[in-house]
Amino acid sequence: MSNASTGITFPAGFSASGITAGLKTSGKSDLALVRNNGPRFDAAAVFTSNRVAAAPVHWSRQVLSDGRADAVVLNSGGANACTGAEGFANTHATAEHVAKVLGISSGDVLVCSTGLIGEQLPMDKILPGVEAAASALDDGSEFDGGAAAATAIMTTDTVNKQAAFSGTGYGIGAMAKGAGMLAPGLATMLVVITTDAVLEPSQLDTALRQATNVSFDRADSDGCMSTNDTVILMSSGASGVIPEVAEFSAGLAEVCVNLAKALISDAEGAAHEITIRTFNAATEDEAVEVSRSVARSNLFKTAIFGQDPNWGRVLSAVGTTQAAFEAEELNVTINGIQVCRNGGVGEDRNLVDLTGRNVLVEIDLNAGSQEASLWTNDLTHDYVHENSAYSS
Amino acid sequence: MSNASTGITFPAGFSASGITAGLKTSGKSDLALVRNNGPRFDAAAVFTSNRVAAAPVHWSRQVLSDGRADAVVLNSGGANACTGAEGFANTHATAEHVAKVLGISSGDVLVCSTGLIGEQLPMDKILPGVEAAASALDDGSEFDGGAAAATAIMTTDTVNKQAAFSGTGYGIGAMAKGAGMLAPGLATMLVVITTDAVLEPSQLDTALRQATNVSFDRADSDGCMSTNDTVILMSSGASGVIPEVAEFSAGLAEVCVNLAKALISDAEGAAHEITIRTFNAATEDEAVEVSRSVARSNLFKTAIFGQDPNWGRVLSAVGTTQAAFEAEELNVTINGIQVCRNGGVGEDRNLVDLTGRNVLVEIDLNAGSQEASLWTNDLTHDYVHENSAYSS
Repeated sequence: MSNASTGITFPAGFSASGITAGLKTSGKSDLALVRNNGPRFDAAAVFTSNRVAAAPVHWSRQVLSDGRADAVVLNSGGANACTGAEGFANTHATAEHVAKVLGISSGDVLVCSTGLIGEQLPMDKILPGVEAAASALDDGSEFDGGAAAATAIMTTDTVNKQAAFSGTGYGIGAMAKGAGMLAPGLATMLVVITTDAVLEPSQLDTALRQATNVSFDRADSDGCMSTNDTVILMSSGASGVIPEVAEFSAGLAEVCVNLAKALISDAEGAAHEITIRTFNAATEDEAVEVSRSVARSNLFKTAIFGQDPNWGRVLSAVGTTQAAFEAEELNVTINGIQVCRNGGVGEDRNLVDLTGRNVLVEIDLNAGSQEASLWTNDLTHDYVHENSAYSS
Repeated sequence: MSNASTGITFPAGFSASGITAGLKTSGKSDLALVRNNGPRFDAAAVFTSNRVAAAPVHWSRQVLSDGRADAVVLNSGGANACTGAEGFANTHATAEHVAKVLGISSGDVLVCSTGLIGEQLPMDKILPGVEAAASALDDGSEFDGGAAAATAIMTTDTVNKQAAFSGTGYGIGAMAKGAGMLAPGLATMLVVITTDAVLEPSQLDTALRQATNVSFDRADSDGCMSTNDTVILMSSGASGVIPEVAEFSAGLAEVCVNLAKALISDAEGAAHEITIRTFNAATEDEAVEVSRSVARSNLFKTAIFGQDPNWGRVLSAVGTTQAAFEAEELNVTINGIQVCRNGGVGEDRNLVDLTGRNVLVEIDLNAGSQEASLWTNDLTHDYVHENSAYSS
């Protein structure tokens, strides 16, 4: 670990930058560059499962086919989705320009974009921006290039999101953006994770899929899946340490869970952060299915906004799933008060305090011993306002 | 057809009433009774597929097992869902009281309830209410008992919903309630449909399933499925006419489509009524899947509220489906303007006029020759307000 960075330049072997290319009308920074300085260049990624995927997703999926990535360029201010052949050509040209400036192969340059769908990127701003970003690359020794990158990828995020983990002789660092349009298959987000541990691409891939499965896949803000979701994991191997797999996997999962929760807590217009824990399920997948069904109920989400512990809306959502349970054996606890017992009325709902920002809904299926938690937020006037007043 | 009724007493052989039992704090009417006066008593019904079904759903499903129903009692002001053994006993007692008052068997009395989940019905008001409703029964010759019944089942509905169809020598009449929590598997609703045509229970069942499949199952207001959905079809045979099946089925479907659209147009807090038509699909089921995915996108629904023809959000939703299509062959037309062509930018989005209440979104999958339309509405401040401020 080279420095005091708390993000992607926390592990050794990475430099990063975030600059203003002029893509955002706000004048805020909008282009980030992450470079792996080696000695190894192993990488893996998970992409959106949306079949209407953006040009940079198509490009980056191809780049990763050989398990190697030397750099990532990310822009906010435009998603480059639904932009046809011209959009793909623009992604290609961006990667080529990064490769030329850094003296690497364009086939090892990942590209991520976020912003409005259906508009071409202004390449007359992107290409000079790439040069400026390359000049500003910093490994954390001079200033915090990782934080600058984390800020440049923000869209409606109100804060940048970073996370780090200290392993035995190596580190993991990460940055994320995403606030709204968060849903699984991945939450709608861009995430870059770095490590200086020594791992093969297949090991990175396995660890990354395990980690996203219990983190970003369980953050479901509004049920909407984006065209641009990308989670990248890169290893420089600069620590020279071959990590113990269990420790690395746990550290990676911790970083991803922290970022997933940070995304939910910054979700557009949210007034409550809601954890929906389903337990005593027959399988973990069924626990996820039940929690997700509740997380996607607009009626439940508006009730929480209104500080109404409306457990009937929880049961209505549970009832739409295929999970194993008997309706007359369901229990629901909201913020510690068991408002539904054996499928019927439990403790007095007026005892539930929903004035705070954090809400814990616990659903007891009485059908097994597995559990899972999802994180979501309420459906508020501000959500409607932000998503009706502004295009994205 | 006995009279000028435009609802359930339009066909011969039915009488109905709606009275105030005192279940609603508003003092509005809240208990309806429908009686089939014969000579035949054939019936069929479709119920919610929600596994947390209300007591009256369990009861009525049992009643219908022999294809006969002589009466339906419906109450607003309480769903009698998640009410355990006491709730079921209350449904049973209500049916017994109707049977006693009308001189029929309780095993032929259907029960429907709508209102807040998780509270016991006040039987000290229900039972006298049943007597008052029986006294008020009218076949349309004196006053409009059908309209009174349609009004008594309203909850947050702002208008009562009735429909009628004139067949060759017979009629079909119907009433519906439901405004919010509308979703498939059935829209959340109570519907009673009557006819004086002569049909066997199995014929009624087949025709009813076909009709709900293209009507209530395609009304998706907020994706939430209720615990109480019930659609009942009863035949008195009073016309003596054995209908031509195609005509009857078409008439029944027409009645159901009209009511489904009426439910969407009265959905809680809606500012736009949106028809999502998917065409050139490989199969009708895939057309439904695509339309439903868009209808359930909160981002799309808030955009329409904001009068933003955000076709990127349409494509994002389409991309989450399993339907046959190629992303670069998708076309999207909003209110006549083809804003997305071949998966990319089409005509100028500023040409789209979304100031009116009706919105037509047409999605061309370019993958076949099938089509289907769904009806939904936008996601508005009023939706959030109504569903956060009031329990239901």
